[in-house]
Amino acid sequence: MQKLNQTPNIVLAEIITIGDEILYGQVVDTNSAFMGTELGKIGIKVKQITSVSDDAAHIVQALDAARTRADVILITGGLGPTKDDLTKTTLAAYFNVGLKLDEQSLADVTEIFKKYGRELTELNRQQAFLPENCLPVRNILGTAPGMWFEVDNKIMVSMPGVPFEMKTMMTDIVLPRLQQHFGLPKINHKVIMTIGIGESFLAEKIASWEDQLPPHIKLAYLPKLGSVRLRLTGLDTGTDDLETEMQAEVDKLSELIPEYIFAYGEVSLPEAISNLLKEHYLTIATAESCTGGMVAQKLTSIPGSSAYFKGGIVAYDNAVKVEQLGVSEATLETFGAVSEETVSEMAQNVRQLLKTDIGIATSGIAGPIGGTPEKPVGTIWIAYTDAHQTVAKKLNFNRTRELNMEFTTMNVLNLVRQSLPEAFRIG
Amino acid sequence: MQKLNQTPNIVLAEIITIGDEILYGQVVDTNSAFMGTELGKIGIKVKQITSVSDDAAHIVQALDAARTRADVILITGGLGPTKDDLTKTTLAAYFNVGLKLDEQSLADVTEIFKKYGRELTELNRQQAFLPENCLPVRNILGTAPGMWFEVDNKIMVSMPGVPFEMKTMMTDIVLPRLQQHFGLPKINHKVIMTIGIGESFLAEKIASWEDQLPPHIKLAYLPKLGSVRLRLTGLDTGTDDLETEMQAEVDKLSELIPEYIFAYGEVSLPEAISNLLKEHYLTIATAESCTGGMVAQKLTSIPGSSAYFKGGIVAYDNAVKVEQLGVSEATLETFGAVSEETVSEMAQNVRQLLKTDIGIATSGIAGPIGGTPEKPVGTIWIAYTDAHQTVAKKLNFNRTRELNMEFTTMNVLNLVRQSLPEAFRIG
Repeated sequence: MQKLNQTPNIVLAEIITIGDEILYGQVVDTNSAFMGTELGKIGIKVKQITSVSDDAAHIVQALDAARTRADVILITGGLGPTKDDLTKTTLAAYFNVGLKLDEQSLADVTEIFKKYGRELTELNRQQAFLPENCLPVRNILGTAPGMWFEVDNKIMVSMPGVPFEMKTMMTDIVLPRLQQHFGLPKINHKVIMTIGIGESFLAEKIASWEDQLPPHIKLAYLPKLGSVRLRLTGLDTGTDDLETEMQAEVDKLSELIPEYIFAYGEVSLPEAISNLLKEHYLTIATAESCTGGMVAQKLTSIPGSSAYFKGGIVAYDNAVKVEQLGVSEATLETFGAVSEETVSEMAQNVRQLLKTDIGIATSGIAGPIGGTPEKPVGTIWIAYTDAHQTVAKKLNFNRTRELNMEFTTMNVLNLVRQSLPEAFRIG
Repeated sequence: MQKLNQTPNIVLAEIITIGDEILYGQVVDTNSAFMGTELGKIGIKVKQITSVSDDAAHIVQALDAARTRADVILITGGLGPTKDDLTKTTLAAYFNVGLKLDEQSLADVTEIFKKYGRELTELNRQQAFLPENCLPVRNILGTAPGMWFEVDNKIMVSMPGVPFEMKTMMTDIVLPRLQQHFGLPKINHKVIMTIGIGESFLAEKIASWEDQLPPHIKLAYLPKLGSVRLRLTGLDTGTDDLETEMQAEVDKLSELIPEYIFAYGEVSLPEAISNLLKEHYLTIATAESCTGGMVAQKLTSIPGSSAYFKGGIVAYDNAVKVEQLGVSEATLETFGAVSEETVSEMAQNVRQLLKTDIGIATSGIAGPIGGTPEKPVGTIWIAYTDAHQTVAKKLNFNRTRELNMEFTTMNVLNLVRQSLPEAFRIG
């Protein structure tokens, strides 16, 4: 065990996933990315990820190789009740131990069957038998308990491959236990969500702030679909109050780029907009052309969205823009469907029709066909309106249909955040 | 080289991905699943997938280990122009060869820069220098050419990690060359897309057909989100016309389960519905409550959807159901929003309002809150209507909000396929 106020040697981990379905491409391995992220957050570095077949000799080979490189080996998959699930028996043989009944695991699996109103089968009962040398890791969401082994100063943990079972086990049990075992220093994280500025421009804008960060606070840029997450990782040196110190850095950053920050913490843009609307008791309606329903879909993807989302009109065809949304034919004829005038009317009219505080609208050419020399594919207008104002904005994208739609949706949601007047925010 | 009419030994492959971003969980490795699937289709089995760090010694260790197990090693990543991209120099050192300029690669990278109106930088010019012992693999979509090595009867191919560059290289060059190199027998695939029946029930229903398949035609079940893909893989034995033989098997299957098949080939349900509507010159409108715009979004995700999709109304709030969709208040009061009566009116009214051939509607409780004892979370009504009929269907799901919405969307699209009258199909 190392002292908390001392920077430890780097702890290295390896991940081994077991199962032909990953190798044959039937399943994309998303578990490893989750584990890599979470291990990183407590200061453990993943050195290698190995996916092997449902084959005992191959599993053993991967274990032996991983032990030469890593301090921690996390294994997922192969814990089901059927005969092609080999992980448990392979581990028992590897450690040369027998299996014994774990009462807590039996109680857990019995409970799960009871919940679904079914009798415990013998195959599932056998899932509660675990290698004698392991510390069981409770699985409250499934029938396969995890196993924690300590051998030659190495930690090996076997978990189910079912993502939500593995994630719960990692968060509740495995990560805290690893932190404790290796005496890892306390690590603190702050996430700042930004939108509307590319990674390199953002880096330039905050360079002076980044440079003045103390050595025990590191910054990572994590870009994704037009949004950049900034993650601060602080190592507790025991000298200052880390939480206070990090919050002070976040505050400095907030003053530097207030217009780009839409949330603090791991919050998606639709969630942030939902929170904003709920907080101020505001309602919203959508009028969509080129996004075809995606804006409404993102807003309703959040539980409890009926508190602020009344509804929307997908006016794909111009006749629907006129007849359902009441856009004037003159506007459509003079300016075209993809114009500031049309998109503004769409937003204003849907707000009035659905009697909401806010109306938002999209109209553009998502592609891959439908462009003209004056309005090429990717030309998109978005609008926001409330009782006081209407704001319209032109976007130009040069992506696939899907990405053009995604970016437009992100932008119109961001426009809500940017346009909401201070007076409104009081609710 | 083996004769085509002889079953060859199994060719084994390994995939090595290079790059810290996968290990640290910043990127999910989707490349490997693509490669596993495509290799499987030409009869090559993936034995292991290894993700290693941007570190020369670690890359070499992985290469050495892979060579003890596999005939083919496919490497992705680490081919960018910056100094942390180590793959090319590591491979040259591994094979103890120098780099030489490949004129075709230089022409390709110059062309790419020209397309974006930029001058070729020295860093990018260096990307056209390749290990002397490699056969270049053209990259028409990016600046890093691939490399094909043949050493000790093993094939090693290095490709960029950018998914669309790698996929194009695999499909156009690497897979055909592997087929030729190993004299792999011709393999034929037929995909049959089913929906509305679970994997185990489907397996039971088609067991007798599956059992009578000749040994050189294999069946795989590939379930995904309520749909099961059936993939037939036929090995050309040189005795019969494989294409004719396989089509005959597909025809037999079609007679056995016509109601569950929505397409032949890799076609998504929204695509299949789009094709059906376009083929018969039919138009459609959507009225959505619990799916919140997802049905419209899926329909408009298909390029050219303006040919059949006029628009939709997302009637999340009951007031919108009454005022925009014209659902009678009496219906809502008597039967509730989640009822056969309401969902039928929604479909009928949106069809009339938007003047389309078909109207579809959804109304239900997506969760996680909003359920009652009589109508628990997951209780959902869907409806289809045309000039001749209205069909409504009750669904019960017990999933997350997101999955309840996804399954409802799949089901209402499937209802179009199931309900479309023969008379209509003539167009």
